[in-house]
Amino acid sequence: MSAIPEEFMSTQAQVDKQAIQPFPNSRKIHVTGSRPDIRVPMREIALSDTHTSQGREKNPPLTVYDTSGPYTDPETKIDIRQGLPELRRNWIEERADSEILPDLSSRYGRQRNADSKLDSLRFVHLRPPRRAKAGHNVSQMHYARQGIITPEMEFIAIRENQRLEQYREQLAQHHPGQSFGAHLPSRLTPEFVRSEVARGRAIIPANINHTELEPMIIGRNFLVKINANIGNSAVTSSIAEEVDKMTWAIRWGADTVMDLSTGKNIHETREWIVRNSPVPIGTVPIYQALEKVGGKAEELTWEIFRDTLIEQAEQGVDYFTIHAGVRLAYVPLTAKRVTGIVSRGGSIMAKWCLAHHTESFLYTHFEEICEIMKAYDVSFSLGDGLRPGSLADANDAAQFAELETLGELTEIAWKHDVQTMIEGPGHVPMHLIKENMDKQLACCGEAPFYTLGPLTTDIAPGYDHITSGIGAAMIGWYGTAMLCYVTPKEHLGLPNKNDVKEGIITYKIAAHAADLAKGHPSAQIRDNAMSKARFEFRWEDQFNIGLDPDQAREYHDETLPKDSAKVAHFCSMCGPQFCSMKISQDVREYAKQKGLEHHTALEQGMAEKAQEFREKGAEIYHQT
Amino acid sequence: MSAIPEEFMSTQAQVDKQAIQPFPNSRKIHVTGSRPDIRVPMREIALSDTHTSQGREKNPPLTVYDTSGPYTDPETKIDIRQGLPELRRNWIEERADSEILPDLSSRYGRQRNADSKLDSLRFVHLRPPRRAKAGHNVSQMHYARQGIITPEMEFIAIRENQRLEQYREQLAQHHPGQSFGAHLPSRLTPEFVRSEVARGRAIIPANINHTELEPMIIGRNFLVKINANIGNSAVTSSIAEEVDKMTWAIRWGADTVMDLSTGKNIHETREWIVRNSPVPIGTVPIYQALEKVGGKAEELTWEIFRDTLIEQAEQGVDYFTIHAGVRLAYVPLTAKRVTGIVSRGGSIMAKWCLAHHTESFLYTHFEEICEIMKAYDVSFSLGDGLRPGSLADANDAAQFAELETLGELTEIAWKHDVQTMIEGPGHVPMHLIKENMDKQLACCGEAPFYTLGPLTTDIAPGYDHITSGIGAAMIGWYGTAMLCYVTPKEHLGLPNKNDVKEGIITYKIAAHAADLAKGHPSAQIRDNAMSKARFEFRWEDQFNIGLDPDQAREYHDETLPKDSAKVAHFCSMCGPQFCSMKISQDVREYAKQKGLEHHTALEQGMAEKAQEFREKGAEIYHQT
Repeated sequence: MSAIPEEFMSTQAQVDKQAIQPFPNSRKIHVTGSRPDIRVPMREIALSDTHTSQGREKNPPLTVYDTSGPYTDPETKIDIRQGLPELRRNWIEERADSEILPDLSSRYGRQRNADSKLDSLRFVHLRPPRRAKAGHNVSQMHYARQGIITPEMEFIAIRENQRLEQYREQLAQHHPGQSFGAHLPSRLTPEFVRSEVARGRAIIPANINHTELEPMIIGRNFLVKINANIGNSAVTSSIAEEVDKMTWAIRWGADTVMDLSTGKNIHETREWIVRNSPVPIGTVPIYQALEKVGGKAEELTWEIFRDTLIEQAEQGVDYFTIHAGVRLAYVPLTAKRVTGIVSRGGSIMAKWCLAHHTESFLYTHFEEICEIMKAYDVSFSLGDGLRPGSLADANDAAQFAELETLGELTEIAWKHDVQTMIEGPGHVPMHLIKENMDKQLACCGEAPFYTLGPLTTDIAPGYDHITSGIGAAMIGWYGTAMLCYVTPKEHLGLPNKNDVKEGIITYKIAAHAADLAKGHPSAQIRDNAMSKARFEFRWEDQFNIGLDPDQAREYHDETLPKDSAKVAHFCSMCGPQFCSMKISQDVREYAKQKGLEHHTALEQGMAEKAQEFREKGAEIYHQT
Repeated sequence: MSAIPEEFMSTQAQVDKQAIQPFPNSRKIHVTGSRPDIRVPMREIALSDTHTSQGREKNPPLTVYDTSGPYTDPETKIDIRQGLPELRRNWIEERADSEILPDLSSRYGRQRNADSKLDSLRFVHLRPPRRAKAGHNVSQMHYARQGIITPEMEFIAIRENQRLEQYREQLAQHHPGQSFGAHLPSRLTPEFVRSEVARGRAIIPANINHTELEPMIIGRNFLVKINANIGNSAVTSSIAEEVDKMTWAIRWGADTVMDLSTGKNIHETREWIVRNSPVPIGTVPIYQALEKVGGKAEELTWEIFRDTLIEQAEQGVDYFTIHAGVRLAYVPLTAKRVTGIVSRGGSIMAKWCLAHHTESFLYTHFEEICEIMKAYDVSFSLGDGLRPGSLADANDAAQFAELETLGELTEIAWKHDVQTMIEGPGHVPMHLIKENMDKQLACCGEAPFYTLGPLTTDIAPGYDHITSGIGAAMIGWYGTAMLCYVTPKEHLGLPNKNDVKEGIITYKIAAHAADLAKGHPSAQIRDNAMSKARFEFRWEDQFNIGLDPDQAREYHDETLPKDSAKVAHFCSMCGPQFCSMKISQDVREYAKQKGLEHHTALEQGMAEKAQEFREKGAEIYHQT
């Protein structure tokens, strides 16, 4: 245990200082729901006044979706040794359909907890696990189908609305969008959330053992979400780094975080992450199962896998990637591919199937897995183990065979009222992206799609956040509900904190571009606020409204470091002598003076047409 | 003159050392055309062998398009005080339709050359200018319409083919693409190049005074190109930096470079850039004209502008952005916009029109401008002075009114056989991008479209290379011929060399993603080579095939710095214990052993169908 860094001896673990810095000019607000314990966090950005020739005009503050949790709330004292406050505890207890267990149900979990050599590494305040009472189903889908609106659902409705009602005026300026069949109501109600979850078109990943969670939703008729992957590996990185990456990832906007750790102490790392995470945590349980059999895929068994599911479910993992669609018969379909099987989970299962020449135990035991999922409300993320690893392999027989199986499995999961989303590729040229979305909707009954990128070209290692950000924006527009980020290190190495941030900002851009193109009612408010600030040379507001205020300010200061430049009515591109934005303001003044504002060429043209119509054919509709 | 840095005293000016580094494992090759002086440069990347259980297999070298000019050719001695070799001189002289003038025709040019205070700053080996003989038209479009295939056209056909014939085998694996009406022949001929230029669907920016140029083409039926902007400003940066930025930009793949300088010594800066540039140089002449009237737009005159066109044409500028579509009547259409007029050229002309309350002199003198263009073969880049500066203003009446006028002007330019492309926006949400492309094709007779981005959201200053790279990839797919890059500093400051590179790589990705989606016959060869190298753990090849070998290697080394890791059959993500790529190779071996490679579920299904057909309906076509 000498390799454990001192700062992660459990009694000394500290929060990353960067994670608790408030955002500039921002404050944490809470919008209260129908009961006082529904307090939905948002970030409010204060804006400066507009100076006009008539004086000052106030700019209303901007409300933005906030994934950062209590970390950016100066009123919450953060101590990662204690974990976050248990926001959902009462809601879960009130439902009275679950019970506290005397001990962990997982054999492995009990072993780890009993091992005193791990004491220094362990999260101290372990809680006993909670599970559905016998015969009960605690999934949000189960409640939804019974017509119950849970506090989680109401929380989400408030959260997704982002105080839209305060911005009604601006909505007239919004482009209507092209939604490809998505239905984005102008105001979300708790009932709408319930109906979408009941229909299976959205999921609320919310394990009853993850009481610290601020509920969120993943579905085509809601804001597009993004996931950030963290996780140590056999090669590098420590528990401390992983917890820091989680708090760092949610600061910049990760809606969920997947812990893909593959090294030692996975169990302990996960406990630290879940206890300190306000966002849903996803995992790929087969990774840990593989560690338990010393990395030998052929030695995996259903019993080891089952114990791993229970171990992780009792820690509070909110969704599991399960590659149950990698069937024996599909494995040979990958033999002629340029890049074979690139999903780690997919290749583990392929190797197991080949070694035993028998059907995947994930497929044959799928209903038993559903029983576990519904006892804790863990959501499925049905893995695309046969996704293409190169453009050459995109949309091939192996990929689509698996997708059809995922559709069958979705039906089985829904029969159990288990929440389900579907993972998607991968590497796909732009013109083949929409086929993925359309086929997923058709095969999987509109269950939410959750895609990795896709990367639209293979030729830019070091820039795969960008090759994939392009594909992510497009597939998000077409209907993907959550985008799994890709960092600049993809295909090359493990991301550090800078890479994590770069990947997240890229994916926030993709998700937001998708919301705009779909015509999400609140999406353009932030763009309009930025554009107005830009036109009015409110530099500080431009920095603060942006996804990354620090970067924007730093770039601006590289060229024009003086504070006076931040109130200057020019920018570094043209300099003080001449500025197009300045001229535009002159044009506006001029047009106003001359009364030209309404005497536009277009309107003049329309006026002429109208005259013509009156003269020639005003009665045309009366005659027919 | 004390502000001139010593390294740019003209006698001491040196090439940027970074620009002349050879790319790893690459060599400059030249493919010779029908005459020995048509030598088309390409870069050939040598690949290592594949190791199989049967031994070694050779991987053919990869040929990639090369914009870097003689800088990466170890056989050319670079001396930027001399300028590049005059590749096109004989071709132009042979045509015998132009003549060397005794002196510059531009009054301003003569003034600058006579000013001894500028001697230390001036490119020493000034050449007398060349112009069409009276009554002649030296544009490539003029030749094309007469049925003449110029050496420039043949050069381009070879260049665009990229030795495709050597990769025929691989083409079977290519996705066919969705081209939206673009016609991408499987092998380009010089005659095809000619016909596209004659039709106006492609341009060859190639001023007869830019003899150093390696000809390239911009058109929807060719590889998508990218432009990088450089240019000092009143606020910062020097001539030396701008020349360095140019050589740096073409190293990473800029197909053309626009010099947008607005500070002092614009004339001298431009001379250095053109004499040392193997790629077409574009400018916005109104920027310099404005400098000449002390930054006061209302003091601009047709005479000053005309003299500026001639001044720059005689230096060898290959295309001019001219905002002749900003008509007086359209200016008030921008008054109600969120961000007014954001194009610098557009706002200059708007201010002029308003100040004089008269039609733009660019519009009223358009035919005279055409006369100048055809005397030097300068191509039009008809500027979109009213492009939207925010999503809110996208696709509005002002923008489309101007676009229609650009269509009229294209017809006039074509009447003069002047090559013409059309500039496009700007800031556009994804779902409104295609309308831009479709409308441009319809209004402008399929003249090449040249767009800035578009940015798909406004909320990410510091990351606008990404917000716009998404839009650029999409509009490139839809048919845009050239994409104008955006750097991370957009809206914030002036790009440094790192920003230039980041912007270029992002746009190379966008352009290549577009080529792939359109189904360009050679595009996927590089992706396939990368994917094969990835599958076979040929790390060095992966770095070398990529757009940025330096970055890829650096990222890899951050996690696994040892040289041994570069031949390891695992990567840093999973470590040596388990690797999905490794398993895929096992799958392939297994399938081969068991003869499963052809016994796929799909093929089995098809075999059954075939059987059924034989039994039930094999004669179906005989009976009808």
